[in-house]
Amino acid sequence: MKAIANLTVIPIGIGVSLSRYVAACEKVLKEAGLQLELHANGTNIEGEWDGVMAAVKRCHEVVHAMGAPRVFTVLTLGTRTDRDQTMEQKVRSVQQKL
Amino acid sequence: MKAIANLTVIPIGIGVSLSRYVAACEKVLKEAGLQLELHANGTNIEGEWDGVMAAVKRCHEVVHAMGAPRVFTVLTLGTRTDRDQTMEQKVRSVQQKL
Amino acid sequence: MKAIANLTVIPIGIGVSLSRYVAACEKVLKEAGLQLELHANGTNIEGEWDGVMAAVKRCHEVVHAMGAPRVFTVLTLGTRTDRDQTMEQKVRSVQQKL
Amino acid sequence: MKAIANLTVIPIGIGVSLSRYVAACEKVLKEAGLQLELHANGTNIEGEWDGVMAAVKRCHEVVHAMGAPRVFTVLTLGTRTDRDQTMEQKVRSVQQKL
Repeated sequence: MKAIANLTVIPIGIGVSLSRYVAACEKVLKEAGLQLELHANGTNIEGEWDGVMAAVKRCHEVVHAMGAPRVFTVLTLGTRTDRDQTMEQKVRSVQQKL
Repeated sequence: MKAIANLTVIPIGIGVSLSRYVAACEKVLKEAGLQLELHANGTNIEGEWDGVMAAVKRCHEVVHAMGAPRVFTVLTLGTRTDRDQTMEQKVRSVQQKL
Repeated sequence: MKAIANLTVIPIGIGVSLSRYVAACEKVLKEAGLQLELHANGTNIEGEWDGVMAAVKRCHEVVHAMGAPRVFTVLTLGTRTDRDQTMEQKVRSVQQKL
Repeated sequence: MKAIANLTVIPIGIGVSLSRYVAACEKVLKEAGLQLELHANGTNIEGEWDGVMAAVKRCHEVVHAMGAPRVFTVLTLGTRTDRDQTMEQKVRSVQQKL
């Protein structure tokens, strides 16, 4: 089952600057060989469900290991059985109707 | 790693009434032996990360099998390493300050 | 336009304990006269769109005024034109199918 | 108060293809003069809180007017009082640490 996800990771209890932690999580996602799209409010991820989820778990573990006592994540997940669709196709499909 | 999650599952392409699908997903979560709290906008879940995530995946599979060609999920996940905390404690902690 | 919302407010940069800020936000929502349901991952809100949104804005202002330099909020919003539905009806509709 | 938001709009009850509705919402956001970044899972928005929120409400109204009986939205909102930050700076701040 393929998933297109959006991941926003918020480390809590380490101050106001979060980018070091977000970058560490981004590296985890890259090492997992997932299709990625870093954007201003998170990272879009395309991949097999299990691979995406294993990487999200690893993000929490890595951010905790860097010293964050709490981690809060917002994850949206889309799956479909009617047809295959890539992240690029999703964006193009909207742009063609603008 | 324990997680406290909030799961909102939106089946797409099966019309306007979603409760039959949400109930099927609720049964999946119950059968997984997770701590649950059904509320007006989703279900709060308390459990080990892997158990929570396996149940969320099973939800998508079950809702697709019921005929929904697309499933969109919003999942929030909180983990903490400083101390153990239950869903009940989270609510009480806020209520005590009201 | 009536809305049923779920609000999760995360103050950032004030340490690991968030309940004092969440409680302040809860008071704002109450003072706004909205239907509320505090739960383990946020607060469900039922009310007119403009009233809900004004209260969410006031939450951000109040939490900043308490000292949080950053506030991150996850808000889900549901509206429907086919029929009126309360938060209680949403939950009952699922429970009847369990 | 400036906000950086991520908006994901899901029309419900109009079938499996959502892009026509998402595009209509995108036009609403553009007409509101907001900074936008369409991505695979939503649209990032930068602007004054009130302008962002007025446009999100207009999205719901427009999507209902197009025939969707239910609209479900996931909105994340970030505000900060310590310093001004753009969407572009948020992305660059992470990329510099990769």
